[in-house]
Amino acid sequence: MTTRESLRFEQGLAQVQNDRTQGAAELARESLRLLVDSALTTEASTLMDWRRSLLERAQRLAGCRPSMAAIRHLIERWQATGVTLADDRPLDEGRGIAAAAGRDLIEQSQRATEQAAEHLARHLGAGRVLMTHSLSSTIVGVFTRLAPLGVAAIVTESRPLQEGYRLAERLSALGVPTTLMTDAQMGLFVARADAVIVGADSRCPDGSLINKAGTYLLALAAHDQGIPFYVCSERFKQRSVDWGDPEFEQMDPGELGAPVWAGVTVANEYFDRTPAGLISAWFDEHGRER
Amino acid sequence: MTTRESLRFEQGLAQVQNDRTQGAAELARESLRLLVDSALTTEASTLMDWRRSLLERAQRLAGCRPSMAAIRHLIERWQATGVTLADDRPLDEGRGIAAAAGRDLIEQSQRATEQAAEHLARHLGAGRVLMTHSLSSTIVGVFTRLAPLGVAAIVTESRPLQEGYRLAERLSALGVPTTLMTDAQMGLFVARADAVIVGADSRCPDGSLINKAGTYLLALAAHDQGIPFYVCSERFKQRSVDWGDPEFEQMDPGELGAPVWAGVTVANEYFDRTPAGLISAWFDEHGRER
Repeated sequence: MTTRESLRFEQGLAQVQNDRTQGAAELARESLRLLVDSALTTEASTLMDWRRSLLERAQRLAGCRPSMAAIRHLIERWQATGVTLADDRPLDEGRGIAAAAGRDLIEQSQRATEQAAEHLARHLGAGRVLMTHSLSSTIVGVFTRLAPLGVAAIVTESRPLQEGYRLAERLSALGVPTTLMTDAQMGLFVARADAVIVGADSRCPDGSLINKAGTYLLALAAHDQGIPFYVCSERFKQRSVDWGDPEFEQMDPGELGAPVWAGVTVANEYFDRTPAGLISAWFDEHGRER
Repeated sequence: MTTRESLRFEQGLAQVQNDRTQGAAELARESLRLLVDSALTTEASTLMDWRRSLLERAQRLAGCRPSMAAIRHLIERWQATGVTLADDRPLDEGRGIAAAAGRDLIEQSQRATEQAAEHLARHLGAGRVLMTHSLSSTIVGVFTRLAPLGVAAIVTESRPLQEGYRLAERLSALGVPTTLMTDAQMGLFVARADAVIVGADSRCPDGSLINKAGTYLLALAAHDQGIPFYVCSERFKQRSVDWGDPEFEQMDPGELGAPVWAGVTVANEYFDRTPAGLISAWFDEHGRER
């Protein structure tokens, strides 16, 4: 049965699935917001019905962006703490506990993102030229902290949808002098930076980074030219060992805007993997990791 | 004085300068064609006047695309062989010698390009998946030779002007199964290729390669993943030691199509340099070099 409430969930799920502009941390929190809303409003006559419906929605959300570990991670944490009430307790109590647990995790994630940015900003200090790829809310946080102290940015456009333009706009508003360029120019510009800083879509158990396609190329160039390469993300981005190998999301090839020719297939893989050996250090909510 | 003939030269020069779709070899030959035309038709009353005018045009052409060694190289070769007649000889004899020398060099360059492609195609053999970046007439020659034997291609779009689209169109016409993608996906796809093959804008005396921006990133990824990286170009692409450091051409930032924000500078550098250590082998008209 389609109710107004279930329609709202389906629309929210589709938004998380199709969003190409927000980073993994923001979409993970958005997913939790949808589950808090579902916990409070989904129609059910018993606690068991309610839980079955809620966990089904949680599972769909957890799988909708396989390259973004934080979504699955936060949802699993939420299930473990917020959807555990014994079957004989009142439905309203279940709703309240689940919603509170979700709100608490959203706040924890938000705080962790801010703390990670704070740690990296302190490490970098004033007066640096920092290069980045793609758009990460954590990295925006780093620039926001450094803007009053003096910082310059080198940013890629990040094809196919140029989310680098959104970053450039944010940096302009912050008054950060910014150089914007094609992804192909990364190798030319990395030597003009004091450090490369990127966010994370996932961190794998082997220490490798999954992030927007092109991150691996930037890490190779930074390594080749002796420029430090830092990743900044909350711990919720960590993939569990038992999740197996990450799936690399394929998006609509139409996003490239290429013409159609016989025998030509357009590829639009969104994420690549940067091996641990190319990463100088990770910064999370607890500081520098190694 | 602007004559119809001088206007034709100025238009031709502007075309070479602004061309973003033809490779260095093609533009070098186009430059020689302009000089052959000038040699035959430029107005002059004496051999000395004619030579002064011709050499001035040659110098402007030779400097108009500093990243493309072949243009300067072929023009210098042409000056050394085609514009040397003693001052007391008839003007028409000078015109004839200069034009013949130019046509001869055009033919030599064309043949060298074809031979280089032939050598690389033979080395690669049938049934390979070959990855490339940007659009090179020499690389088109390699695919043309391998198409009847069986070959597949992985090509980048090559921002900002997507000359990779033109390559995809050519490959489609040749019946070569092709995967087209953003430059940022190079690191994901290089492991799916048997070899990377690129043309050259210039070869530096230290063995490094100057080519379309992004080539260095592809070479880094190929090296990191153990995929051979071959350059294919005629010897005219070699820069002389006494030319000093190459200048890296800056093109119109408007080519990116980015919006304008306060404090945001758009960079559009067209060429990067790939160190010799990342290059598995060069193929030229004489075969494999090392």
